[in-house]
Amino acid sequence: MPNGNTLHEVLTAVFQVRKIDDNPELCVLLWERALDPERGAWSLPGGVLRDDEDLPTSARRQLTEKVDVREVAHLEQLSVFSDPRRVPGARVIASTFLGLVPLGADPVLPPDTAWHPVSALPRTAFDHGVVVAHARTRLAAKLSYTNIAFALAPAEFAMSTLREIYCAALGYQVDATNLQRVLGRRGVLVATGATAPPGRFGGRPPALYRFAESRLRVTDEFAALRPPS
Amino acid sequence: MPNGNTLHEVLTAVFQVRKIDDNPELCVLLWERALDPERGAWSLPGGVLRDDEDLPTSARRQLTEKVDVREVAHLEQLSVFSDPRRVPGARVIASTFLGLVPLGADPVLPPDTAWHPVSALPRTAFDHGVVVAHARTRLAAKLSYTNIAFALAPAEFAMSTLREIYCAALGYQVDATNLQRVLGRRGVLVATGATAPPGRFGGRPPALYRFAESRLRVTDEFAALRPPS
Repeated sequence: MPNGNTLHEVLTAVFQVRKIDDNPELCVLLWERALDPERGAWSLPGGVLRDDEDLPTSARRQLTEKVDVREVAHLEQLSVFSDPRRVPGARVIASTFLGLVPLGADPVLPPDTAWHPVSALPRTAFDHGVVVAHARTRLAAKLSYTNIAFALAPAEFAMSTLREIYCAALGYQVDATNLQRVLGRRGVLVATGATAPPGRFGGRPPALYRFAESRLRVTDEFAALRPPS
Repeated sequence: MPNGNTLHEVLTAVFQVRKIDDNPELCVLLWERALDPERGAWSLPGGVLRDDEDLPTSARRQLTEKVDVREVAHLEQLSVFSDPRRVPGARVIASTFLGLVPLGADPVLPPDTAWHPVSALPRTAFDHGVVVAHARTRLAAKLSYTNIAFALAPAEFAMSTLREIYCAALGYQVDATNLQRVLGRRGVLVATGATAPPGRFGGRPPALYRFAESRLRVTDEFAALRPPS
């Protein structure tokens, strides 16, 4: 029983922390299906893998139809969704990706496409809601042992902004002082030496930081397990 | 250009730390190809996905042909290898898995199958050598921020044995005292209260430990990022 009738598709959960009514919220990019099956439900961007491309190439090609991919600061492969009955009709295996867009970027979107808060998703198509939940879990895990927040943060930011990004991505409150201490000790953050313009309520202008690197790395190996340098 | 002629296969890199000439070595399970293509080269266990099974089911089914899967203490999905030209002929997309077998288990193997040290692989078929390298990198990363070593260790062990497992899996030396301190502080290890039989050179019999859990978890979240309990 080989699988020559099976199609292979790519789906990407693109996340961005966005202000909604002035509250930072983790949002995901979805498009509304105009045709059956699942007309009116919201889908992740993606599509069928072409014969001449590998999966990351396909993910980037398909994203260009929905969003300026130069805004996607990080893209990584997640699980494969391979339940034989995950969609009606011919079998479709879905390789899924996580994409991240920094706070403040505002890419132009096609009319059928919009950002939705992960905490209040509209009706999603097929198993796309499960893919979103899976991608969010991966993001939350990686926030705790890597520098992945570089891809959600603007180039320079006050600690209060970074705290908002972590809170929105994790879905619970974290303390800015602890965050600064931990990320500083791990060499993840660098002070730029500059300060932000004073806030609307006055007060001391906050110091600005940036991420030391804009490539993913594990930041908290066991000290005992670091390779000899 | 849909991809209806594409096959989908599953490949699993099964690792075990084994004593070779009394030296612990990270080994991988391979079988020797009796037919072309790549006759005489060594392959990872796997095969074509069936229409009625998902990927983890397929990986377990295919492993049963090579090894008693009850010995596989951990199985997780790795990347998809999707280069259109990764094998000759019709396109085959490979979903890869990492499997781990505890030290000391000695499953019966079919005649074409053997354990090979990862540091001295024979000629491997297609891109299977790259899959092995990728799986080993994932294992080393997870050793540093999870309890994944539970799946490489016997049920109870002296710290000197656990150190040997870490050294073999990572490919460099680690210190047993540091290892014990870090894993103890993180609640990963539990002392059983028992001691091992005295070694062949006498001396104080070593204390025995076990892993607190035999399911994968991230052990070193940023303290600042732990969810409220």
